[in-house]
Amino acid sequence: MDVTPYSCKTREDLAQEYKVELARFEACKAKGLKLNMARGKPATAQLDLASEMLTVLAAPEDCYDGAIDARNYGELSGLPCAKAYWADMLDCKPEQVFVGGCSSLSLMYDVIARAYSHGLRHSPRPWCREEKVKFLCPCPGYDRHFTITGSFGFEMIPVPMTPAGPDMDLVEKLVKDPAVKGIWCVPKYSNPDGIIYSDETVRRFANLRPAAPDFTVMWDNAYCVHEFEGEYVPFPDILSLCAQAGSPDLVIEFASTSKITFAGGGMSCIAASEENIGYLTKLFSVQMISYDKVNQLRHVRYLKDRENTIALMKRQAEIVRPKFQVVFDYLEREIDPLGFAHWNRPTGGYFVSFYTLTGTAKRALALCKEAGVTMTGAGAAYPYGIDPADSNIRIAPSLPPVSELREAMEVFCTCVKLAALEKMLDLS
Amino acid sequence: MDVTPYSCKTREDLAQEYKVELARFEACKAKGLKLNMARGKPATAQLDLASEMLTVLAAPEDCYDGAIDARNYGELSGLPCAKAYWADMLDCKPEQVFVGGCSSLSLMYDVIARAYSHGLRHSPRPWCREEKVKFLCPCPGYDRHFTITGSFGFEMIPVPMTPAGPDMDLVEKLVKDPAVKGIWCVPKYSNPDGIIYSDETVRRFANLRPAAPDFTVMWDNAYCVHEFEGEYVPFPDILSLCAQAGSPDLVIEFASTSKITFAGGGMSCIAASEENIGYLTKLFSVQMISYDKVNQLRHVRYLKDRENTIALMKRQAEIVRPKFQVVFDYLEREIDPLGFAHWNRPTGGYFVSFYTLTGTAKRALALCKEAGVTMTGAGAAYPYGIDPADSNIRIAPSLPPVSELREAMEVFCTCVKLAALEKMLDLS
Repeated sequence: MDVTPYSCKTREDLAQEYKVELARFEACKAKGLKLNMARGKPATAQLDLASEMLTVLAAPEDCYDGAIDARNYGELSGLPCAKAYWADMLDCKPEQVFVGGCSSLSLMYDVIARAYSHGLRHSPRPWCREEKVKFLCPCPGYDRHFTITGSFGFEMIPVPMTPAGPDMDLVEKLVKDPAVKGIWCVPKYSNPDGIIYSDETVRRFANLRPAAPDFTVMWDNAYCVHEFEGEYVPFPDILSLCAQAGSPDLVIEFASTSKITFAGGGMSCIAASEENIGYLTKLFSVQMISYDKVNQLRHVRYLKDRENTIALMKRQAEIVRPKFQVVFDYLEREIDPLGFAHWNRPTGGYFVSFYTLTGTAKRALALCKEAGVTMTGAGAAYPYGIDPADSNIRIAPSLPPVSELREAMEVFCTCVKLAALEKMLDLS
Repeated sequence: MDVTPYSCKTREDLAQEYKVELARFEACKAKGLKLNMARGKPATAQLDLASEMLTVLAAPEDCYDGAIDARNYGELSGLPCAKAYWADMLDCKPEQVFVGGCSSLSLMYDVIARAYSHGLRHSPRPWCREEKVKFLCPCPGYDRHFTITGSFGFEMIPVPMTPAGPDMDLVEKLVKDPAVKGIWCVPKYSNPDGIIYSDETVRRFANLRPAAPDFTVMWDNAYCVHEFEGEYVPFPDILSLCAQAGSPDLVIEFASTSKITFAGGGMSCIAASEENIGYLTKLFSVQMISYDKVNQLRHVRYLKDRENTIALMKRQAEIVRPKFQVVFDYLEREIDPLGFAHWNRPTGGYFVSFYTLTGTAKRALALCKEAGVTMTGAGAAYPYGIDPADSNIRIAPSLPPVSELREAMEVFCTCVKLAALEKMLDLS
């Protein structure tokens, strides 16, 4: 294989390369593949690891948390043992926890939806009564976050990511606008870049002085124990830092076991100042009597504490790591020498964030689709689904078995090259 | 015991009666009771009946609905088997079902909240952009319904209940106002009256012609299989009736297994026209990836179908019925002869709706509390918590064991009499 960077090649060489890749593409297409790397879904083998949880509550007498019968109504903010579990996981206090159902996304949605209809603790009025609401969106970011704020009609302002987290100079400038009401963050193994916010970034978040009194940092700690390589990486507790900085209510944190136990039957939580938890609990009291406490108890009995959870995640890492390795191997061998693309190399989380030649991501993914490989749509990681550079592609290698993943990466590398060559040769 | 109606007694006789009841009250108080009949909570023995459900999914291979792994992401509107289960329960089509988490209340809340922020299928605009939203509240009704519409600032209009359901003449008149956007209904064993809407009432609901194009009947079928006496009572499928009447989108129906399996870990659903389900599913897609599908599968494997569910409910009835019998016995013996109060005698549901002497319900419940018996607050069954007659009291006998229930009813009868006598003697 010729490994000269595309930029050093003559037009004739590129045209020749194009022919080679086109032939590879046609060969891929002929296989009639049907592969999916669109979403960060756990593999079946990961789900199987948590099977003991299915029967950890086997009889009526197992269903009590102290004197509380998990099977009956009550305990809106969660079972005490579940609050203690999350406090241990997130380095906060049990009083700072509200335990939810299987979806942390729905808790985030509810916080935004309640801000819209009722207002948050420090809101002068519900956000639906504001003339304009703006929301900061570090990007590339998590498409479902942006879909939420988009669905409420907020103006979404992109904030570039740096290797240390969102560009904090820009964030600090933008929050001076009182219409800016919040920001989305995935602080550990950010989606999709896999970046861990630096201590300095976390500190600057805790010390933000936004103009809006109800400005809220939506701190989606989705990957808090999700290392797939190396040891567990401790991470600062943002809630204490906010309290120390005199802004205890600035941040609302979210986490879940969706990628620890079952993606379709996990346990989620909100962690926030006691005052915020009190305020939100009052709002939730209108909405329900409690989330599923039997499942909360099932989780706590099975996962026990952070130490035991991390031990489970190490077993998951054995399944996840080889898949990321396949991605890295392909990219390093097939793409790196050509010099037109770059990507991150995370040690946790669920994604590889790939930046191809500007203006060719959409085309590359259309080619992938043509060859039977479905990826997250180009632009998905940007507000309104628009990547101004048309460059970022999110690779989600967790679901397919390694053999399928190899086939998918073969297709992916071919399509990315083909799209780049088309552009360089003005064929598109 | 003197059983002359109070209305036939002289003032002296009433004063004598008052002394007797006051002595009984003091004796009750001296016992230092701590009893609770505030909420319709299932008893532990009822919860125990569903224990097999805990282990019905025991291994990874149990977790599939056909090719779908319930443990993983996906299937936003619910597992196909769960939709089929609810379709069987409610006499509708699986395509008309969206399966939720453990709380049907939260599904109702979400429908109202989305109407407020985004609008329903036929809304000219989100309800937060309407100048005024009014909502019809048949009363006495379910306090948590009224709390939802109250929390969004809707004007709640009381509609009296008749033995056949809400006063439909009034409903038909009120829906001519385009600001009236919906009505709360518990059509079978209404909360708290235990009334089953007549076929005529159901038919009139299906044939409503409201001025508001997005008027919605919130059809909370909470007690669809909850007979505690006698055989299962079939109930018309409102969705077909609406379709036949040319208004398929008029009604959104809700149900759950909270009082079938576990109140703290059940399965809920929305049933509505396919178009409404499609519209709501699109809104829900912003909010979450799916509700807990493992719990959905657990329920379907355990409950199987309507026939089997009704068989379980018959076993629950053996536990529930004796408790209602205690309430009826006390009321018939202690209160009925005195002629100042009346109550319903339902054969299903969770409540006895008691109407005491006008203007004395609050006082009676304050006395109960003083004697250590907590009941649902007076007025709770009315919008804004205001019972204009101060007469209705909701008795919820399901939770306490029979022995405690006897003690509680002893206190209750005494306090109701005492409050009535205070009023008749102008002592209050």
